[in-house]
Amino acid sequence: MGEEKTHGEKLGKLREIVKAVDICMLTTVDEGGHLRSRPMSNNREVEFDGDLWFFTYGSSHKVDEVGRVPKVCASFADIDGQQYASVTGWAEVVRDRAKIEELWQPQLKAWFPEGTQTPDIALLKVEAERAEYWDGSQSMVAHAVSLVSSLVTGEPAQLGENEKLDLK
Amino acid sequence: MGEEKTHGEKLGKLREIVKAVDICMLTTVDEGGHLRSRPMSNNREVEFDGDLWFFTYGSSHKVDEVGRVPKVCASFADIDGQQYASVTGWAEVVRDRAKIEELWQPQLKAWFPEGTQTPDIALLKVEAERAEYWDGSQSMVAHAVSLVSSLVTGEPAQLGENEKLDLK
Repeated sequence: MGEEKTHGEKLGKLREIVKAVDICMLTTVDEGGHLRSRPMSNNREVEFDGDLWFFTYGSSHKVDEVGRVPKVCASFADIDGQQYASVTGWAEVVRDRAKIEELWQPQLKAWFPEGTQTPDIALLKVEAERAEYWDGSQSMVAHAVSLVSSLVTGEPAQLGENEKLDLK
Repeated sequence: MGEEKTHGEKLGKLREIVKAVDICMLTTVDEGGHLRSRPMSNNREVEFDGDLWFFTYGSSHKVDEVGRVPKVCASFADIDGQQYASVTGWAEVVRDRAKIEELWQPQLKAWFPEGTQTPDIALLKVEAERAEYWDGSQSMVAHAVSLVSSLVTGEPAQLGENEKLDLK
């Protein structure tokens, strides 16, 4: 079932998909325990190193939701390119001024009219734990990427090669 | 904040997005309680009437998952067209022969080599309860669509107009 990829190769491909797609659907658990998603930009200029970063308002519904249940899933879909990724992780709200300044992009002004000084501006950080991607150019083979051990501790990750036909 | 849409208009737009995007990321809750998603085709020829239908294998991981926790979210993203939809609902496995024959599409043969006679072939039905869509052509206004009452009982749905800037 295809050639075995190294963790680094898989992570590289995952990064490529995250960067190229940029706008994901972020799924959270709402107050009734239902899953819901909304489009969010992953700030294209930031290299995905295991954390996703989204600008948001601190008073937004999704911030409430992740305050109660921090489990989230970010879904990236490039339908024309037949590339998909699912990033499973933990979300938290970050209000650190320095981080907001570091990640700020001018085009965000459409949503945050006063720039980094917009009242209630915040970041939603998603610490990725596991991810899976599907690469259509390889007949829709899925690769699972374990992020938690290698990125956080520097130890080798469980590769968890997970090839399957999942586009049904 | 924009003109008020009727439930019918919102549902029409939601149908349009679901049909045009076709391949969604279906998020389920896994055995550890984590959210994960995978690309699935909603069988483009079928008109969305409140239920999504996906072909699958009865022994697949996601079938296990929805057997334990039936709550799912289907995310549709058309990034170029700036149209997005989140469909929240309940999933169940359907093995009804007549339904499988009814929904079958020839191009599914890539995944189910023996067609509708492929061993273990099944349908994953998602009964939509709520949905939300974002229409970029209207400066990314979000519309919430309550599906449960109008579609299931025929009574008018709560409109729940929910306009917000959610693409951050």
